[in-house]
Amino acid sequence: MSDETINNFFSKVDSLKSNFITRLAEAVAIPSVSADAEHRPEVVKMAHWLVKELTDLGATDIELKELGIQEDTKDLQLPPIVVARYGNDPAKKNILIYGHYDVQPAQLEDGWNTDPFTLVEKDDALYGRGATDDKGPVICWLNILQAHNELKLDIPVNLVFCFEGMEESGSLGLEGLIEKEKDAYFKGVDAVCISDNYWLGTKHPVLTYGVRGCNYYSITIEGPAADLHSGLFGGVVHEPMIDLSHLFAKLVSPSGEILIPGIQEMVATLTPEEDALYDNINFDLEGFEGNIGSKTIIHDNVKSALQARWRYPSLSIHGVEGAFYSPGAKTVIPAKVIGKFSIRTVPDIESAKLDQIVIKYIEEEFAKLGSKNKLKAELIHDGNYWVSNPHNWSFRAAARATKKVWGVDPDYTREGGSIPITLSFQDILKTSVILLPVGRGDDGAHSTNEKINVPNYIEGTKTLGSYLHYLAEEEKDA
Amino acid sequence: MSDETINNFFSKVDSLKSNFITRLAEAVAIPSVSADAEHRPEVVKMAHWLVKELTDLGATDIELKELGIQEDTKDLQLPPIVVARYGNDPAKKNILIYGHYDVQPAQLEDGWNTDPFTLVEKDDALYGRGATDDKGPVICWLNILQAHNELKLDIPVNLVFCFEGMEESGSLGLEGLIEKEKDAYFKGVDAVCISDNYWLGTKHPVLTYGVRGCNYYSITIEGPAADLHSGLFGGVVHEPMIDLSHLFAKLVSPSGEILIPGIQEMVATLTPEEDALYDNINFDLEGFEGNIGSKTIIHDNVKSALQARWRYPSLSIHGVEGAFYSPGAKTVIPAKVIGKFSIRTVPDIESAKLDQIVIKYIEEEFAKLGSKNKLKAELIHDGNYWVSNPHNWSFRAAARATKKVWGVDPDYTREGGSIPITLSFQDILKTSVILLPVGRGDDGAHSTNEKINVPNYIEGTKTLGSYLHYLAEEEKDA
Repeated sequence: MSDETINNFFSKVDSLKSNFITRLAEAVAIPSVSADAEHRPEVVKMAHWLVKELTDLGATDIELKELGIQEDTKDLQLPPIVVARYGNDPAKKNILIYGHYDVQPAQLEDGWNTDPFTLVEKDDALYGRGATDDKGPVICWLNILQAHNELKLDIPVNLVFCFEGMEESGSLGLEGLIEKEKDAYFKGVDAVCISDNYWLGTKHPVLTYGVRGCNYYSITIEGPAADLHSGLFGGVVHEPMIDLSHLFAKLVSPSGEILIPGIQEMVATLTPEEDALYDNINFDLEGFEGNIGSKTIIHDNVKSALQARWRYPSLSIHGVEGAFYSPGAKTVIPAKVIGKFSIRTVPDIESAKLDQIVIKYIEEEFAKLGSKNKLKAELIHDGNYWVSNPHNWSFRAAARATKKVWGVDPDYTREGGSIPITLSFQDILKTSVILLPVGRGDDGAHSTNEKINVPNYIEGTKTLGSYLHYLAEEEKDA
Repeated sequence: MSDETINNFFSKVDSLKSNFITRLAEAVAIPSVSADAEHRPEVVKMAHWLVKELTDLGATDIELKELGIQEDTKDLQLPPIVVARYGNDPAKKNILIYGHYDVQPAQLEDGWNTDPFTLVEKDDALYGRGATDDKGPVICWLNILQAHNELKLDIPVNLVFCFEGMEESGSLGLEGLIEKEKDAYFKGVDAVCISDNYWLGTKHPVLTYGVRGCNYYSITIEGPAADLHSGLFGGVVHEPMIDLSHLFAKLVSPSGEILIPGIQEMVATLTPEEDALYDNINFDLEGFEGNIGSKTIIHDNVKSALQARWRYPSLSIHGVEGAFYSPGAKTVIPAKVIGKFSIRTVPDIESAKLDQIVIKYIEEEFAKLGSKNKLKAELIHDGNYWVSNPHNWSFRAAARATKKVWGVDPDYTREGGSIPITLSFQDILKTSVILLPVGRGDDGAHSTNEKINVPNYIEGTKTLGSYLHYLAEEEKDA
């Protein structure tokens, strides 16, 4: 990509700014809330809006992949996955672009300053549900097509679009579709680009190369047949809630150290190269404390805090089902309590082995308590971690695009939480995945007054567009 | 009391059986539910029903003591306390009879086999709300008056009745009235008899000489300003729920041993005489396990189990406010949790000293955790224990009455739970209190299908009636 080409592309993007904002406004105006069955027609309407845009922009092979009836409903049809191609040159690399067109629920009464389904520009930011999660980034790709079309500029890779409508509701049907189309519609994909996360902060662009997994467990302790009065039975029976408290205290220390033996041993050793990625990340603990709203961070430096967040496992205790949870004072001995906790997993923790270790440990610790209550410890659900090589060809291309647009090298980040689809694409398509975010860390993706800053939307379009050009230039890793 | 007199009284009670059942049926038909503002007129109606009965039976000085507006309501009048006298001979002892005429809520839909406000006789038991708690026992006293009137038999003590209408709703206004009338209406009371608890089991009559107190505490731990996502912040922040779990585990062992130093030291030493009261109590662990519906009793013999229940302190953990409590799996780090626990107190634990010990211990243990979260441990409410001398003149009279009616010596029991009014009468009137129950342990006082067995109702009338005669004979203790 010559400097002239890229400068033309950038100028075209700048000149289309108001056009791009109008496109986003149209999309935000469709309340495609996937969590709410009553909104399902709006989700489907959004799929058709995408089909029209893609058609107008010259995409081909556009299909609405139907996914059948939503599980646990009578006849609620899942929204379709929109697939399309742009370019089909066998000499070019094939890049799969993932995004989602459904949004989180939103109501003015929740605390929005303006109607969530009307895009409002204020202080150089665009407010509206989906502005940053994920309609903004999805539309960046459409904007890129428009800019190239108007410039009659070739996109040097083939694009395969995959836009789903159930991401905010568990991505139902997506993994099945990837599996089904791996040797068909998605055959020959060389890399996957997902723009559905955020910068770490508000100032510095990032590339994201990993997410932690999550194994979620329950500890059920059963004693009496029904709740008892603590006056009548306190001191007489083994209380499930007391047993559970002792087990909880055996799981993790107040400073976050997992007390279950055998887990730390599975964690991949930190290499100097990986450690160096944390050296100059644009992040400060004061800002982090500001996010949290309290000075309760365990770590005293950025590197430890971020490594604890991204590349080490953690164990959180979420709560107790079956105990007294209301305000006030109830003198109850709960008959059956279900403790909930989860472990965030990282390389090279094997999920099945982790389950075995965790459950055996809880059973052994319970046996030590000498309680006559009954214990059951089990996995509720799991999702594996994902880590990519942040120096591979796709990341190199994204780093060049970032540097070109923003004038700085990107920070390399991971996410503490899970994004299961990342792993689905990587494992099923056997390809490399990059998370290349457009929005900022303070966009309020699932919150009220969600926004995307105009610079992020416009420079994001440039970043994603130039990424495609650099992808064509970068040599695929062995 | 000659054998002839007593036999006449017993025969009269037997002959009035159907009359007594009709009287109870009339009372049960008035749904005097104190917890429900809409039922308040029915509670008042029940007070007037008592006034009419007392008037017809020759009671004097009958008054409805008004208690004003119920706190935290706009204009809801508290139901009056019905006071009355029967006999006013300065040469006789004065016995205060306490009972309550309000009842727990009840609806057929809750699982009643028959309308809760229609007394139904089945298998020699009388089913209906209030049958045993506490209309049955209250009406036993009315039955005693009727039998004596018809026999023209003197009651050898003066009776002072005190029937309240808010017992099931915290006895609002009662303590104030006792305080107000201690040197007026209630002046000169020699003993108080309360029939508002139950036999330990279903076969053996009991006299009750103690109840435990209860100090209820909360542990509030605050970390972040709002709930956090465990993926993003797990391993990064000190989690309040983890801190709380560690503190909970420091309070009490799984076998019920209180781990807070200094509490056991305050407990009165068990004397051989007191220990002997537990030797032959009609009670078995199998039946107790049957009540509980599980084999999770800490103790392997009746004596230890009952002493743990009645005369030793216990600590129960009730639950957590602020944590995740629903079914399912939520990956939340709760920002603020409030743990609830309580300690059942016994002689000679001083409530204020206990608070001091408990709160100091929690603060010290929290300091050891090294958490940056904020802790606040505090007392929510307390109620003192009550213990009487089970060998005093009132108990001796009750034991004689029991032996006469039932042919067996009573078991001496305590209650694990609190009955605060017991203590109010004892402390304010500076007199001895006895709990002399009429109903059985399986009467279902606060449950569906509440009942009183006909033998308990009729023999209970005889027991309470002969108790009055023996009271006149027994010499008051110094």
